[in-house]
Amino acid sequence: MSMSASVSTVLSGQPDIKAWQESLYKDLHAHPELSHQESRTAGIVAERLKEDGFTVHGGIGGTGVVGILENGQGPTVLLRADMDALPIAEATGLDYASTAVGMDAAGREVPVMHGCGHDVHVSCLLGAARLMARSRGSWSGTLVALFQPAEETADGARGMVDDGLVARIPRPDVALGQHVLARPAGTVSPHPGAFLSMADSVRITLFGRGSHGSMPHLSIDPAVLAAMVVVRLQGIVSREVQPGEFAVVTVGRIAVGAKSNIIDDHAVLELNIRTYDTSIRDQVLGAIERIARAESAASGSSREPEFEVYDSYPLTHNSSDVTQRVTDAFRDYFGGSVTDYGRQTASEDFSAIPYAFGIPYTYWGVGGIDPGLYRAAEEHGTVSADIPGNHSPRFAPVIEPTLETGTATLVVAALAWLGEG
Amino acid sequence: MSMSASVSTVLSGQPDIKAWQESLYKDLHAHPELSHQESRTAGIVAERLKEDGFTVHGGIGGTGVVGILENGQGPTVLLRADMDALPIAEATGLDYASTAVGMDAAGREVPVMHGCGHDVHVSCLLGAARLMARSRGSWSGTLVALFQPAEETADGARGMVDDGLVARIPRPDVALGQHVLARPAGTVSPHPGAFLSMADSVRITLFGRGSHGSMPHLSIDPAVLAAMVVVRLQGIVSREVQPGEFAVVTVGRIAVGAKSNIIDDHAVLELNIRTYDTSIRDQVLGAIERIARAESAASGSSREPEFEVYDSYPLTHNSSDVTQRVTDAFRDYFGGSVTDYGRQTASEDFSAIPYAFGIPYTYWGVGGIDPGLYRAAEEHGTVSADIPGNHSPRFAPVIEPTLETGTATLVVAALAWLGEG
Amino acid sequence: MSMSASVSTVLSGQPDIKAWQESLYKDLHAHPELSHQESRTAGIVAERLKEDGFTVHGGIGGTGVVGILENGQGPTVLLRADMDALPIAEATGLDYASTAVGMDAAGREVPVMHGCGHDVHVSCLLGAARLMARSRGSWSGTLVALFQPAEETADGARGMVDDGLVARIPRPDVALGQHVLARPAGTVSPHPGAFLSMADSVRITLFGRGSHGSMPHLSIDPAVLAAMVVVRLQGIVSREVQPGEFAVVTVGRIAVGAKSNIIDDHAVLELNIRTYDTSIRDQVLGAIERIARAESAASGSSREPEFEVYDSYPLTHNSSDVTQRVTDAFRDYFGGSVTDYGRQTASEDFSAIPYAFGIPYTYWGVGGIDPGLYRAAEEHGTVSADIPGNHSPRFAPVIEPTLETGTATLVVAALAWLGEG
Amino acid sequence: MSMSASVSTVLSGQPDIKAWQESLYKDLHAHPELSHQESRTAGIVAERLKEDGFTVHGGIGGTGVVGILENGQGPTVLLRADMDALPIAEATGLDYASTAVGMDAAGREVPVMHGCGHDVHVSCLLGAARLMARSRGSWSGTLVALFQPAEETADGARGMVDDGLVARIPRPDVALGQHVLARPAGTVSPHPGAFLSMADSVRITLFGRGSHGSMPHLSIDPAVLAAMVVVRLQGIVSREVQPGEFAVVTVGRIAVGAKSNIIDDHAVLELNIRTYDTSIRDQVLGAIERIARAESAASGSSREPEFEVYDSYPLTHNSSDVTQRVTDAFRDYFGGSVTDYGRQTASEDFSAIPYAFGIPYTYWGVGGIDPGLYRAAEEHGTVSADIPGNHSPRFAPVIEPTLETGTATLVVAALAWLGEG
Repeated sequence: MSMSASVSTVLSGQPDIKAWQESLYKDLHAHPELSHQESRTAGIVAERLKEDGFTVHGGIGGTGVVGILENGQGPTVLLRADMDALPIAEATGLDYASTAVGMDAAGREVPVMHGCGHDVHVSCLLGAARLMARSRGSWSGTLVALFQPAEETADGARGMVDDGLVARIPRPDVALGQHVLARPAGTVSPHPGAFLSMADSVRITLFGRGSHGSMPHLSIDPAVLAAMVVVRLQGIVSREVQPGEFAVVTVGRIAVGAKSNIIDDHAVLELNIRTYDTSIRDQVLGAIERIARAESAASGSSREPEFEVYDSYPLTHNSSDVTQRVTDAFRDYFGGSVTDYGRQTASEDFSAIPYAFGIPYTYWGVGGIDPGLYRAAEEHGTVSADIPGNHSPRFAPVIEPTLETGTATLVVAALAWLGEG
Repeated sequence: MSMSASVSTVLSGQPDIKAWQESLYKDLHAHPELSHQESRTAGIVAERLKEDGFTVHGGIGGTGVVGILENGQGPTVLLRADMDALPIAEATGLDYASTAVGMDAAGREVPVMHGCGHDVHVSCLLGAARLMARSRGSWSGTLVALFQPAEETADGARGMVDDGLVARIPRPDVALGQHVLARPAGTVSPHPGAFLSMADSVRITLFGRGSHGSMPHLSIDPAVLAAMVVVRLQGIVSREVQPGEFAVVTVGRIAVGAKSNIIDDHAVLELNIRTYDTSIRDQVLGAIERIARAESAASGSSREPEFEVYDSYPLTHNSSDVTQRVTDAFRDYFGGSVTDYGRQTASEDFSAIPYAFGIPYTYWGVGGIDPGLYRAAEEHGTVSADIPGNHSPRFAPVIEPTLETGTATLVVAALAWLGEG
Repeated sequence: MSMSASVSTVLSGQPDIKAWQESLYKDLHAHPELSHQESRTAGIVAERLKEDGFTVHGGIGGTGVVGILENGQGPTVLLRADMDALPIAEATGLDYASTAVGMDAAGREVPVMHGCGHDVHVSCLLGAARLMARSRGSWSGTLVALFQPAEETADGARGMVDDGLVARIPRPDVALGQHVLARPAGTVSPHPGAFLSMADSVRITLFGRGSHGSMPHLSIDPAVLAAMVVVRLQGIVSREVQPGEFAVVTVGRIAVGAKSNIIDDHAVLELNIRTYDTSIRDQVLGAIERIARAESAASGSSREPEFEVYDSYPLTHNSSDVTQRVTDAFRDYFGGSVTDYGRQTASEDFSAIPYAFGIPYTYWGVGGIDPGLYRAAEEHGTVSADIPGNHSPRFAPVIEPTLETGTATLVVAALAWLGEG
Repeated sequence: MSMSASVSTVLSGQPDIKAWQESLYKDLHAHPELSHQESRTAGIVAERLKEDGFTVHGGIGGTGVVGILENGQGPTVLLRADMDALPIAEATGLDYASTAVGMDAAGREVPVMHGCGHDVHVSCLLGAARLMARSRGSWSGTLVALFQPAEETADGARGMVDDGLVARIPRPDVALGQHVLARPAGTVSPHPGAFLSMADSVRITLFGRGSHGSMPHLSIDPAVLAAMVVVRLQGIVSREVQPGEFAVVTVGRIAVGAKSNIIDDHAVLELNIRTYDTSIRDQVLGAIERIARAESAASGSSREPEFEVYDSYPLTHNSSDVTQRVTDAFRDYFGGSVTDYGRQTASEDFSAIPYAFGIPYTYWGVGGIDPGLYRAAEEHGTVSADIPGNHSPRFAPVIEPTLETGTATLVVAALAWLGEG
């Protein structure tokens, strides 16, 4: 049986699961869970996989779930989805919008929302798993459906690896994943090479000396110190990184003092760094440390600044062979809807999983925005203003054709290995 | 009867009130109340004044209390104390330390402490009132004992004025006040001319445009904008104010963003400005506004910054005649313990009261630190390190001779008008 | 006759011109002339071209020279070289090093050196012209050899155009040019698309108010203003330009004041901007102006800054068809020595000529460094330290194989149009 | 004879010397000489002193001249004037304006002008010397008239000391000097305590790494480094020096690079520091060095900055006893024209002379501006705009009453010691 024959057969089951899948999606969307707290979602996932005949391994790295479907000789293909939501107050106005409240890591009550589309990812992967399970005659090999926790905190994939993932499931030949993005629903974007950036957050604590606001001469002013560091950091991208190389140094947070007339004794900066190249990442991190130390010295601080690197995302660098194979399969099935969105500045921890197995991978984008809306915004030049992106309180993927497309991509890509015959 | 005979007679009553006054002080210290919430304190004040025969007007400007003791022909002298405490967790280790908890203006529970010595002020003024009441034969005229709320929020004195103070009590000829400071107990510091600085706080909201941390080109970065404003503000004192003129521009608070990888859409700065000259105050405030507007323009912000001036304290500029008269009286009574501490960088809202009446005033300092401790720290050059100042969680005036001195100052100063015969 | 047969025949003349060409090169190198002053060089060029049977048009745009060789039916190909040198004191230690002195535009005596290799360009183009003239039977069409002045001041090519170039010579079908670079001699680098950046210089005059150094309050300090502008400009590349897009904003010159104790009344900044995209160029220039204006306002300057854009170089954006054709021809002749150096950050005014004619063009690099030296530096990772680049006082192309290669490239490329038959 | 009788008698000679003195002044004004080159002026001084019977010592510390007139028993009083002019092109439009050209220390031809009024100082001291010499019967003691070179370069007074001044002339009991200032002519300003500030210039060379303007990543950008240092220096006065203390840190000169598209390898800053207190001077100089070093480190510079302190002027701190004595004498003679201009921000090297002898001194100001003009400018609030100050190309003291007043001050002050009887 040819690959495209496999694809046709397996995907012919899509109409049958449509109502089930949409209901699943709305339920997940209405019940988002914060990173590391995805127990309800993981329960649903495990139950569905079992219904479809998968062998299920739960509780890997906390709430991680892996379903395995062995179906004769052939390659092993891993498909991955992430399950967690964000501490955002949903403002979509959807009738299935979230009103959920959670407890963040600091113990504060926060609103929770699937603001990054992981509910789409879970729904599509469960849909693809069901379709594959129902058409075992059309392919052979092993399908691994992996649902990870805590992508938003950058430690869910690594957490599963640290919890013995490699030893607990069969070694895949290839790993595949996808993300819903603010592009027209129905489109698919494979991209060879660097696709998503490395990301690192750095918390810098700068030390001054406190005093009453009327007595600056007794202080080492942390507000001036923090401001100088922020200003100085601009030179890393503008002067130190080779022109045209991708590097972002964002200071997302500055926190100094609590009251106008008290000079505090320290300042906290939280930075986010984006790069596509390890040597540039190292150059940037080194420059940040150099600058913070030297500016502390310029202020006369007697205590070295402290640095904490956190939320580090690996580079997502798609294998060219794997990407070519997936792209060819997508072109066969989706035709002109395959369009390279180009390199994305976002980040993902997905690659930690293939890295642990030492296997090649590819990761692609699928559109989630009503195509008519998107086209209108494009014509008016108002895409960035009118189309809420991932992490926006108004991010609202249109259910169809998003789910249909995002399910088909997984099936088509998996069959590029499993359907060959 | 000569003035010094009046002084001797009135102050001969001090030993009799000592135990009562110390007990009063410890009770007040253990039960501090936040600004505008001084109801327990005001109740105690009103009760004691009535015991001593004063006519009491309560509830002026909220919790303000004024006691009036008419005692024949002669001038009217206003003595003033402030009653409120601070949201500080006391760390003095005293056996009468505060463990009180209050509710701040934002509705948050906060610890409360008499960290600025207003309990000393109240105890001394009640003591002086009692001594004067018990020796009516030694003086003539009218004594006004005014206890104001909310000095720490800069609106207690104005609040009493706005509530009709001028119409509700006899017009004084002179107003007198004092503050306990981190100097040797037993010393007294009158100072002619500018004694305490004007203070203003300014909250600046700067507007940028939010974006994901990986997409700075879609943002107008409020962190960079805030940093540039803080840096630029340094030039006001370093280049714009005439060298040698007193001016302080402190940025006590910078608040930008909540997370490393989100570029927020605004920044908040809270500044504190100290000056002794209205024209310099206006110059500085004008420069702050000019800089914040221009830096917003430099960032390409499409929205003008917002400015809110709050916690404005007037200049405390002691009348030279009144100060000379008080100083002469202090020298007669305290001798070598009268020592000018010089101009202080702190601020006070006391002068709003004489300003409303259009009368001259003077305001002096009294020491509150164990003289032996102070001398030792001075010898080791460690005063600023070892002697906790006002607003420190460890600020702990020694009870004696602080209360005795701070009571005598009020009596001696009042008798400089009322005791002449 | 096939193209490669043409190439073999024409280039078979190279050994015969070698001694002549090297002597020509050493003479040019020892006698460099500043931009717009290339009269000696232009005289040598005109004389040689006449010797070889070219019709010569001199004095176009000052010292520009064009030689035309009509050789039957066929396309017209323009080959271009630039003739001017730089105000640099040569430090190569070569026995034919320059000791020349010239007069710069400001009337100052300055040393002069062929520090950018234009002597190589002239020698190679005269060599190629001679070879083509000696083998007229191997090609047909018209060869245009153009020698332009003043590339270093960005106005030599435009000057020839403004002086009527288009009307004075036959319209070419294609324009070709090359630059010697600090890469291994013998290598050749064609590159499709953007090859050399746009460059613009901007002179900003910022206005303050002068005063004695001891009276800053009477001044508007231009040193602080200039420093703030320089600091602020860093944000253009770090925050405003899309990450990964090429943009450089260099402040090459800051000039404020003459004496430590005088506050001057203005400051001058000289910036250099490099981009590959007109919309980014416009974005950057707009941001520079916005920042300089706003920082002047932040300083309270009463006079708007002045901007002068000068030394503007157009983008060198190689035609893909033309580049492909040249690359194919290079590969045939040079084999593995054809290696894409990639996009270069330098700039050129060459493209003003094909732009004026409305014809496609390509521009390539040729190596000029002793290959053994280059390889050794590469192995030690010391290329940037050890290999002096263009504009260095030690820039010293090795004569061979630089001249042989740079001559062959011109012949091979020209014959890609003229040698086809 | 009483002091005021002495004064009357000596000053009764003023009308007789008026024409001579004005002619002398115009000649000096038209023939200014740069620091260390005052040979013509010194020749005139020596000649006039000899005419008046002084014993003259010339050539002390270069062109310094001291005249000594011994006149019986009594104290020894030193009167001092400085002789040098400035490299300024005169723009007063006076008919006796300077058109002189001199050679500066760097060997460049520069215009020369008496832009600081030292011609007034010389004319007044020669006039006072003549009056004292003609009335020897009215006083007794020794008069020392000292004319020093090179005040403008801060090394003339020290140069005379280093050349043995103390051993070569009688030890004075007191030293007296004066400066003409942009205040109403006819007024005199004695001031006890700190009168003129200390001044120091600091040249900082910051080291980066050069590169082509298009390759910032290969550079360490000295323009950004210099800008950051200038910005950072603002914090010294704004945050480190105690509020209200006098301190000025002016960056008078920034010099980076020569061309927009070349990143230079170093930057030069020239700073001027003004203080009235040695401990603040040391604090400021220490902070400057700390900041320059740390900012170099923040840029990643591999070479420490270099610092050169030059043109250091000592504090002029008038003895209170001497100043009181002079002030009393001035009040007796000038009445209401004695008016304290207050502390001046300018600097002087005069005090190096009394310091070398270990004697007390005072130094006062005399007005030099037409009183009507000054009053009008004051009324319009345009003094700083309309009245050219010292060092302005338009500084033009009105001849009378400036010379008459500045001569009388010296006589009156000297007789405060010599005229007592």
